[in-house]
Amino acid sequence: MKVGIVGATGYGGAELVRVLHAHPEVSNLIVYSSSKQGSSLSETYPHVSHLPYRLEEIDPVAMNEANDIVFLAAPTGVSSQLAPALLAAGCTVIDLAGDFRLQDVEDYEKWYRKTPAPEEWIMRAVYGLPETNKEQIKTAQFIANPGCYPTASILALAPLAKAGLIQAESVIIDAKSGVSGAGRSASLGTIYSELNENLKIYKVNEHQHIPEIEQHLSLLGYASPITFQTHLVPMTRGIMATIYVNLKQEMTEQQVRDLYHTFYADAAFVRLREKGQYPATKEVLGSNYCDIGFSLDERTGRLTIISVIDNVMKGAAGQAVQNANILFGYAEQTGLQMIPVYP
Amino acid sequence: MKVGIVGATGYGGAELVRVLHAHPEVSNLIVYSSSKQGSSLSETYPHVSHLPYRLEEIDPVAMNEANDIVFLAAPTGVSSQLAPALLAAGCTVIDLAGDFRLQDVEDYEKWYRKTPAPEEWIMRAVYGLPETNKEQIKTAQFIANPGCYPTASILALAPLAKAGLIQAESVIIDAKSGVSGAGRSASLGTIYSELNENLKIYKVNEHQHIPEIEQHLSLLGYASPITFQTHLVPMTRGIMATIYVNLKQEMTEQQVRDLYHTFYADAAFVRLREKGQYPATKEVLGSNYCDIGFSLDERTGRLTIISVIDNVMKGAAGQAVQNANILFGYAEQTGLQMIPVYP
Amino acid sequence: MKVGIVGATGYGGAELVRVLHAHPEVSNLIVYSSSKQGSSLSETYPHVSHLPYRLEEIDPVAMNEANDIVFLAAPTGVSSQLAPALLAAGCTVIDLAGDFRLQDVEDYEKWYRKTPAPEEWIMRAVYGLPETNKEQIKTAQFIANPGCYPTASILALAPLAKAGLIQAESVIIDAKSGVSGAGRSASLGTIYSELNENLKIYKVNEHQHIPEIEQHLSLLGYASPITFQTHLVPMTRGIMATIYVNLKQEMTEQQVRDLYHTFYADAAFVRLREKGQYPATKEVLGSNYCDIGFSLDERTGRLTIISVIDNVMKGAAGQAVQNANILFGYAEQTGLQMIPVYP
Amino acid sequence: MKVGIVGATGYGGAELVRVLHAHPEVSNLIVYSSSKQGSSLSETYPHVSHLPYRLEEIDPVAMNEANDIVFLAAPTGVSSQLAPALLAAGCTVIDLAGDFRLQDVEDYEKWYRKTPAPEEWIMRAVYGLPETNKEQIKTAQFIANPGCYPTASILALAPLAKAGLIQAESVIIDAKSGVSGAGRSASLGTIYSELNENLKIYKVNEHQHIPEIEQHLSLLGYASPITFQTHLVPMTRGIMATIYVNLKQEMTEQQVRDLYHTFYADAAFVRLREKGQYPATKEVLGSNYCDIGFSLDERTGRLTIISVIDNVMKGAAGQAVQNANILFGYAEQTGLQMIPVYP
Repeated sequence: MKVGIVGATGYGGAELVRVLHAHPEVSNLIVYSSSKQGSSLSETYPHVSHLPYRLEEIDPVAMNEANDIVFLAAPTGVSSQLAPALLAAGCTVIDLAGDFRLQDVEDYEKWYRKTPAPEEWIMRAVYGLPETNKEQIKTAQFIANPGCYPTASILALAPLAKAGLIQAESVIIDAKSGVSGAGRSASLGTIYSELNENLKIYKVNEHQHIPEIEQHLSLLGYASPITFQTHLVPMTRGIMATIYVNLKQEMTEQQVRDLYHTFYADAAFVRLREKGQYPATKEVLGSNYCDIGFSLDERTGRLTIISVIDNVMKGAAGQAVQNANILFGYAEQTGLQMIPVYP
Repeated sequence: MKVGIVGATGYGGAELVRVLHAHPEVSNLIVYSSSKQGSSLSETYPHVSHLPYRLEEIDPVAMNEANDIVFLAAPTGVSSQLAPALLAAGCTVIDLAGDFRLQDVEDYEKWYRKTPAPEEWIMRAVYGLPETNKEQIKTAQFIANPGCYPTASILALAPLAKAGLIQAESVIIDAKSGVSGAGRSASLGTIYSELNENLKIYKVNEHQHIPEIEQHLSLLGYASPITFQTHLVPMTRGIMATIYVNLKQEMTEQQVRDLYHTFYADAAFVRLREKGQYPATKEVLGSNYCDIGFSLDERTGRLTIISVIDNVMKGAAGQAVQNANILFGYAEQTGLQMIPVYP
Repeated sequence: MKVGIVGATGYGGAELVRVLHAHPEVSNLIVYSSSKQGSSLSETYPHVSHLPYRLEEIDPVAMNEANDIVFLAAPTGVSSQLAPALLAAGCTVIDLAGDFRLQDVEDYEKWYRKTPAPEEWIMRAVYGLPETNKEQIKTAQFIANPGCYPTASILALAPLAKAGLIQAESVIIDAKSGVSGAGRSASLGTIYSELNENLKIYKVNEHQHIPEIEQHLSLLGYASPITFQTHLVPMTRGIMATIYVNLKQEMTEQQVRDLYHTFYADAAFVRLREKGQYPATKEVLGSNYCDIGFSLDERTGRLTIISVIDNVMKGAAGQAVQNANILFGYAEQTGLQMIPVYP
Repeated sequence: MKVGIVGATGYGGAELVRVLHAHPEVSNLIVYSSSKQGSSLSETYPHVSHLPYRLEEIDPVAMNEANDIVFLAAPTGVSSQLAPALLAAGCTVIDLAGDFRLQDVEDYEKWYRKTPAPEEWIMRAVYGLPETNKEQIKTAQFIANPGCYPTASILALAPLAKAGLIQAESVIIDAKSGVSGAGRSASLGTIYSELNENLKIYKVNEHQHIPEIEQHLSLLGYASPITFQTHLVPMTRGIMATIYVNLKQEMTEQQVRDLYHTFYADAAFVRLREKGQYPATKEVLGSNYCDIGFSLDERTGRLTIISVIDNVMKGAAGQAVQNANILFGYAEQTGLQMIPVYP
């Protein structure tokens, strides 16, 4: 496939370059930028100084001609303009931003406080979480790649939600993220001295991923509001969601684990931990895996689910490539089998 | 006061030296060690190389004669032997370990998996959380200094527990800690390369601070099991407890905040955040403060309380000195008014 | 003394607040800001939310009336305007910026690429390194507080320079700093994700501290150009200078150490390490100490000197207070005896 | 090729698994361990929990039969016993430890303070730095893989040394490393709380890599003692060598750069920075690149060379695989073209 990447100077775009440059089915790769067109990618990123990529101008018609698929790694609020133009030109598009994930434009306005994308295109966007939505992805022209927190959260809850086992109003997601999720832009809140040796909670009860998680849990069968908090951890990559749920019926921890093993039997990137083992974020760093562990507390009957991903990979670029693989009929793991970098 | 510190080569003991050396009411300070007696403290800790302290032998009778009060910063399991000998010799003792915090010896055996201390001394130990237990502390001979997580957790819940406002079985504490809580001892699990750029959950549903928190919430009026999980964050100091509770009756966030302002009106070290402001761990680093913020989610009705402390200060050494101040009739803040080190 | 702090919303200013608020000789403290006047200091810095400071307007005449001394913690380039106005109003001033450190205005223009301060005031500024310049400091109206790197470097070399023992053209200073030296302002180069898990060299052969070090080594007797490189280390506080010199005559390591012990016999904040012991930055964190170690390599005859400071303390705010103590006739250590925060 | 890895539970061994598992020419991979034989590799390393590797017993004869090549990632001091047995059995071996790098056994005893390996095998070991020694590597049975610091240092100096341009006694290498170089074993000196927010110098003038660097610079033409210091930086991966040299003859910086471009014209993994650009460690993280930058200071005439590698890759496992590629006649980059993980 011939691929284009818009926004290659951001972290999500740079990670797409890392994955797609080494992807065995990619025959051509073009990088685009609105702010730095004409410069070499290695001026922004010396880590790819051995690669010849030059940032090209954004022109939807030309982009459609040059590429079989375009990945949009532009900031939320930009995709809403760019994606329709590309789609109208006939392009197949995977959008990594949040602009087309919420089916309800009022939700978008409320949580993002931005002007929503055109509703006709929102309606056509397929939510790109392969583990729950693979059939729709296969035939999509336009994929809205899930958010990082929603990926970790929904994967951790999908089997229970689908089986109707979660008690209403019982879901609490305590999520923690590395700082790369904030992207590559200067702000006082993300400078090193403010975040190092520090742990912060942010967007308390106001994170825009709340409606995204609720919408997709609802489609899976759990239609109830969630409590969702997000914390900034002094590390670069990694998300952990520690999730608390009450079950509708009594189950053993092993029954829960069995349910997940069945649900994810064909999932290439979900790894389930055995009894007494819990995932840590470093165990997926640089890879597309989502690792999940369980503990059912006999004292309280409450189930704790721990889910980790690399936010830049399974939470963004890796998942986008996984979606492209499905779309183009390649094996889902193609170009994504890198082992996590440890330590 | 003349003070002795046992275990000055650990992190808690070193912090006691930092605070007590500068304490205006301390006329003499002696440090003790079982493993390094005879050596200079600066051999272990070059950061105090300008101070003349030499580690002395542990001898309860001599220690009682030389000191008005002895702080035990020995590992859990050691205090259970040492404290009774010191107490029998007539010494006033503040124990920073976990050996005398649980009134129920079966709880101790179950959660600590160690032999409990003699029950007669457990019965005499006063739980040293000044904000909820000051009157008892004033006249105590023997104080069991609270654990780090319990301090952050109980301070965050005490006003609601005391007012009987928390719904049964609704308390979930998602706690995160820096690594210094693991102490100064070599283990594969705490080496730098395993923890840096990593976020871990540990002792899932098995942390020994669970019964400590439950016991003291119960004394405050909330007698219901809690869910409590602990995470290791790649930073040295700091604890954050993100706490989720359902209230028994409808309240506004401001009513909750008012309740806390009233409850903590005389508390020297509790700082409450205003609406929309939430504490970060670095904002208390090196100090004895406990900062608390609130968010009542109108969508779910669930209250989130965020509480942060420096685990080595308010979670250990600072709180111990606060207890000593109360015991000796000094102003509670004496020697503890250092501003957090920021950044 | 009644003290004023300009630029209290920067890191140097915040550290001055931390030190001066607890200083036993400070009877009144006023904070000033050009950008945030009228707001509470705790809006910028929640770590001082228990303190009542409000940021006041900058007005030289009023500031002179209200204060016995004003500390300028404004950015380099701002002090050059503000200091003369304050000085003309009669104020005693300690300037933490670089504007008045270089006696040669051409050097300033070349290395800082800014318009220099008025030369008449540059001439009157006393270089505030107490260990080498105490007599001049005692009677100064205006002190130029040294830079962070120069403090670590000059203290490490002063005894040898003064004794005329350093071979010409042999000094190489390989300096490493935590990120707080870059100050509290948003820039792409200092965001967390770019610096964490990363080690960078910067301003290669172009750092503005080169002429400052050379000027003061020259005054001490070593008039020869130095090689000086600076690296950004993923930590918040701390500077280490690893310094390589060839000696003019053969000496043993112990003779070098003895020379330093004699030179720094009365220095309150210089701590010398014994044979085989070398300082680490954390051993001075939060304190005003400068720790120095030595190794004379018998194979090459080259001497390596290792010097560490906390860049925000001995490299900025702490040293400024030390200078104020000397100026006002207090004991040099007054308000500066805090033990380093460890771990 | 069929490959075996001894010591797969260490960091070097784990990295060999990461690289060789994905290597297109590896048909079979077996992992060996003396301490954990019989257990699954994923018990030690959950990040490879999707891989089926079981740790096998170490038996030189069986290992020779099962593998075309064996990588020894055992600790220094173990290889000296194991390698001869494997070699005697006919095995091709690449040893990542330090046991066979020094041709002079007295040097080994002096710097390593261990019993040296049998001299006959030391004589047969080929130093595996492909950029300077490729012809010998092609036909070797036994390769001593270079140390991490020597790799960064020798690559930075080789072109100048070979050209005879370095002034005698002028080389100073100020090296900085992440903590993973200390390996995966518990010691008080490498626990998180001691190293985080800290910068340390260690093995001052005593590092065992000094004779390794001197030996190979000598072979390249520079036979003069060096000054070499090592620092521990609070990060996991990465080495930077900041190298100071005086040139024998006057050269421009561009002439130096041209010399390196010529010398490394065919080097797959050396990337040279242009004027005013300097490498940072993160720009090679997870990859086999060595990035080098230059600055010739016109004031002092001294040249500063900055060289960075990932110590676990080009400093250990990656370089070992590069050597194996050369040995087996594959393209040197085979399996090693992963782009650095950034951020």
